Amino acid sequence: MVNYPNKKECFHTTYTTLTGKHYTAHRGMNLEDDLNQTNQYYLSHDIAVIHKKPTPIQIVKVDYPQRTAAKIVEAYFRTPSTTDYNGLYKGRYIDFEAKETKTKSFPFINISLHQINHLESIIKHGGIAFIIIAFTSINEVYLLDASYMIDAYKHGKRKSMTYETIKKYGHLITQGYMPRLHYLDIVDQFYIRGVQDEK
Amino acid sequence: MVNYPNKKECFHTTYTTLTGKHYTAHRGMNLEDDLNQTNQYYLSHDIAVIHKKPTPIQIVKVDYPQRTAAKIVEAYFRTPSTTDYNGLYKGRYIDFEAKETKTKSFPFINISLHQINHLESIIKHGGIAFIIIAFTSINEVYLLDASYMIDAYKHGKRKSMTYETIKKYGHLITQGYMPRLHYLDIVDQFYIRGVQDEK
Repeated sequence: MVNYPNKKECFHTTYTTLTGKHYTAHRGMNLEDDLNQTNQYYLSHDIAVIHKKPTPIQIVKVDYPQRTAAKIVEAYFRTPSTTDYNGLYKGRYIDFEAKETKTKSFPFINISLHQINHLESIIKHGGIAFIIIAFTSINEVYLLDASYMIDAYKHGKRKSMTYETIKKYGHLITQGYMPRLHYLDIVDQFYIRGVQDEK
Repeated sequence: MVNYPNKKECFHTTYTTLTGKHYTAHRGMNLEDDLNQTNQYYLSHDIAVIHKKPTPIQIVKVDYPQRTAAKIVEAYFRTPSTTDYNGLYKGRYIDFEAKETKTKSFPFINISLHQINHLESIIKHGGIAFIIIAFTSINEVYLLDASYMIDAYKHGKRKSMTYETIKKYGHLITQGYMPRLHYLDIVDQFYIRGVQDEK
């Protein structure tokens, strides 16, 4: 199934400045913008190198108008075979998918088997793999270790994961002004605490 | 400067089967195809999880014809701010750029300052960063640790790196049938030998 990305991601989004320190319900939430800003913060403060991968696109036709840039005139969205985000933090490989949901559950239709298998490979090869799930109606964002999602997806009876399960096994991400979604705080606590303790 | 990708990468390239065990000059070389096949081999044999990132594209206009997939009708190539390839091998973060050159030198115009800075960050945060350079006229492919390229790019007097320098500081990648370009063999020898010795 093809993942049609939100149109917003196609443009260089202009970010609005927040006046408060926390999310307010009326502002609305855009998980991708928030993660991009967070990753930009991590990069500019030399904390981590984590990027969103470009949307995979199959290009069919390109025009080469004289004296101007090549123009793609026919192309289609392709199904991603990996996750949206990966990078490097404290010498560790980080890999994750990020999804918003309006309801209080996470339907598995939002994630492909390819992505589940990819996350499973990452764990097997010693990387850190998780999913960030934003419940937009209640302004809560969780980091859930990929192992829970893989297990529920492959062996569970349900076709979704409930909010309660995600809340139980996941970790609530602190929201703020800078960084907006400080998910590496959770990575520190639950994945590389040993590294911290040495300091 | 915008990097216009080779048109070939936009399609699902059909790979031709090689009959011999080694490159033959007449076959011609396509570094991207060879690396994609190599990475596919590493993935299917559960050796490593390394992917080429999609080409970054700025989408301007999308049509939504009824009953068919969304069609991108206006888009442009964007300048990549990171490298083309990254992934995970034996618990280590791997990041590299791959370039072909017809001449016996590597002109720095082929790589952007953004990419140089990205590779520098990767080293700083404990990742493995290198450049794969294919000299297509002589069918030789080298893996060069990114530190040499960064230094020559930022502090060197020349606007290119000679074949002799790359040969001196780099490592010749073994070419074969499967995998086509066994660059992880060099990563084993020169980056994670300690891990191997423990086995």
